Amino acid sequence: MELIAVPLTPEAFAPYGDVIAPGLGERMAINEGTTERFHDLAKVDVTGGYTLVNIFRGQPRPRPIAIRMMERHPLGSQAFVPMRGQDYLIVVARAGKTIEPGELHAFSAEGGVGVNYHAGTWHHPLLALESNSDFLVIDRGGPGDNLDEFWFPDNWPAISLR
Amino acid sequence: MELIAVPLTPEAFAPYGDVIAPGLGERMAINEGTTERFHDLAKVDVTGGYTLVNIFRGQPRPRPIAIRMMERHPLGSQAFVPMRGQDYLIVVARAGKTIEPGELHAFSAEGGVGVNYHAGTWHHPLLALESNSDFLVIDRGGPGDNLDEFWFPDNWPAISLR
Repeated sequence: MELIAVPLTPEAFAPYGDVIAPGLGERMAINEGTTERFHDLAKVDVTGGYTLVNIFRGQPRPRPIAIRMMERHPLGSQAFVPMRGQDYLIVVARAGKTIEPGELHAFSAEGGVGVNYHAGTWHHPLLALESNSDFLVIDRGGPGDNLDEFWFPDNWPAISLR
Repeated sequence: MELIAVPLTPEAFAPYGDVIAPGLGERMAINEGTTERFHDLAKVDVTGGYTLVNIFRGQPRPRPIAIRMMERHPLGSQAFVPMRGQDYLIVVARAGKTIEPGELHAFSAEGGVGVNYHAGTWHHPLLALESNSDFLVIDRGGPGDNLDEFWFPDNWPAISLR
């Protein structure tokens, strides 16, 4: 079974989280007109904890990419923003107890655009397309178990992303 | 009076805030070894409010840059991370009630590296060096007046940054 990545848009991604891109949100001219602020682009959810800022340095996987598991963070959101304008891929499924193969959706994200997975959204770990691909990651620190992994059972078809 | 920008390092920037760069913080291998996490690189302070994620699109100013004011956010931190690996400049002064000309310090930041101004740190508004220069900005939303501006008095020397 092959997943087809479609272009990332705020509308298509809305069931999973926020798109972080210039041109979205409320626009404000600031700094004597030298800067445009696109305001409040992601719902940062760190219930019972605190906001962490991290860098993830990703390496590409062999193509087509074998999709064999998904993960979720039940207690908080997690945002990924490329730091060098690089493209990347996304695989998601709606928040919920279980996933079926037909519920996986893939997006291709252009450099310069980030995403914020809402709490509980199933997502594949970072799918970088270049070597040493740095992403700013905003997520939750604090007490509690904030990671669930779901490894696909043997009776699922092989799933790949080109 | 001319400010000389020195290279941004975590040690030199420590009185003002955090440097957000790969290689800093606790390192963790994650995602089956395909990703390295540099963990908890910035102290996000949103006391009495909540974390905002925004994009600032900056335009360059004429060089040398006339430094005529500074601002601070007394209620929270503010992080700037370039989204396309672009270089930028920074002018800061330590948190405190007033600033003197000799307390201004300038840094040159390489693309791929962000900064997080701690609450109260005096800083110049975004000094982008390229047109349409996008930065991810993490700051505080919520009640209260979170912006102080300090316009330099007439008896100060003219201050510029090359």
